[in-house]
Amino acid sequence: MLVNGRQGDLISIRDRGLLYGDGVFRTLRASRGRALHWPLHYRKLQHDCVALGIPCPDLALLTAELDSLLLNHPDGVVKLIVTRGLGARGYAPPTRVEPTRIWDVTPAPDYPVDWAISGIKARLCQLRLSRQPRLAGIKHLNRLENVLAVAESSDMGIGEGLLMDTADNVIEGTRSNLFLVSKGALITPELSGCGVSGVQRDRVMAWAARHNLPMQVRNVRLQEVMKADEVFVVSSVIGLWPIRELEQCRWTAFPVAEQIRLSLAEQDAG
Amino acid sequence: MLVNGRQGDLISIRDRGLLYGDGVFRTLRASRGRALHWPLHYRKLQHDCVALGIPCPDLALLTAELDSLLLNHPDGVVKLIVTRGLGARGYAPPTRVEPTRIWDVTPAPDYPVDWAISGIKARLCQLRLSRQPRLAGIKHLNRLENVLAVAESSDMGIGEGLLMDTADNVIEGTRSNLFLVSKGALITPELSGCGVSGVQRDRVMAWAARHNLPMQVRNVRLQEVMKADEVFVVSSVIGLWPIRELEQCRWTAFPVAEQIRLSLAEQDAG
Repeated sequence: MLVNGRQGDLISIRDRGLLYGDGVFRTLRASRGRALHWPLHYRKLQHDCVALGIPCPDLALLTAELDSLLLNHPDGVVKLIVTRGLGARGYAPPTRVEPTRIWDVTPAPDYPVDWAISGIKARLCQLRLSRQPRLAGIKHLNRLENVLAVAESSDMGIGEGLLMDTADNVIEGTRSNLFLVSKGALITPELSGCGVSGVQRDRVMAWAARHNLPMQVRNVRLQEVMKADEVFVVSSVIGLWPIRELEQCRWTAFPVAEQIRLSLAEQDAG
Repeated sequence: MLVNGRQGDLISIRDRGLLYGDGVFRTLRASRGRALHWPLHYRKLQHDCVALGIPCPDLALLTAELDSLLLNHPDGVVKLIVTRGLGARGYAPPTRVEPTRIWDVTPAPDYPVDWAISGIKARLCQLRLSRQPRLAGIKHLNRLENVLAVAESSDMGIGEGLLMDTADNVIEGTRSNLFLVSKGALITPELSGCGVSGVQRDRVMAWAARHNLPMQVRNVRLQEVMKADEVFVVSSVIGLWPIRELEQCRWTAFPVAEQIRLSLAEQDAG
């Protein structure tokens, strides 16, 4: 663990990351000393910092910290948090911001291997995401909605929960982005009202562009998910999981999802 | 500063308070070694913990910690944070929760004294609060909306910003609850969709009941605020401030607000 470049696992109780969730984060995979898609993650981090008005730490600085971390922890899940740092009491951001940089590594989770191939059982979360355009798409530290949604079920056989918003749109998984394959097109929910726009979502969209698969980013209703030819979720931690079961619906074949999964995995290994 | 009963100002980077804003807080005034309305604050803390499924620390334990804090810091603003504690990676709450208890004291803010008597200049925030019934009313650590709303203006002459929600209701101040006096009745926005239900809001409502002043808790539109006989905001830190100026509107007399302010201040001193 690194905090502002030093070994350590503690931060100040006056850090705005704790006080207000005033910060952003990234979660990425490390494999044999290499952080997968770090440049893509940095670009997202930069975007999210700008959206909240937090000065984003330099790429060179963060890359050096990441490299030193990977020396001791070559494999696992790397988490990077950037907060607005310390502040005086009150919500007003300080005029001079010194962002806090926090790195942590945990072992790679041991999900059942067949989830990537045979698909997962998913469920529909009861909690509805609220719509806040100012925070939509950003991977910020205000994640109570995700916590409450995940806390709804303790069934270890369920791989992911799907989240709808208060306007009846299907948005994402609790920790993943969602895609449908329908009539030869790839569809992913539009994230201008809520949700987190992840690196793997961008990669799937880039894949679609390269393979001339029509790609639609728009509002998605539950009915459409239920009737899709294929449904799958992606994230940097889980990779790609097709959904084989969602409430009353069943899917048994995932030819497009499988093709994308193999292609992404090949890039990961490269 | 106290963290889990020990002197210190550091917490783990794996605390869910930092990772997800998974916790609640209270802000109260300390005066001459006495924490004002601590029993009311504890009741709110308990309510908020229950709402998030966090086991609330015992009243006796927290009171003992507060007392030890007040010995060294008899005056100022006391902040208490209770988080869901440490957890394994991921949103799922741990099965065994050991909440983290954090106490901090800062000097009382030096607001212009005439704000309480002559009223403040307020502004309307551009940011709209999102509607999330599961989190409404709770003083939780997901406070990015407040941060962004406050960051809109750096005008030190403005005492408070008023927040509307995405459904065009006026909800609260960025760090206070809102009341209108209109046609002999006291009105405060209903907080079932968003907002924080504060201790001082309850105290004003209790005052209205004691003085047989009709009290309405319901949706409030901006037009109604603009046309109210009096408008004021309350919080444990600021006390009660009438609003003398809000966008194009001006108010010059606050007889009911003044009566309530004096009555609350009298209780505070008691």
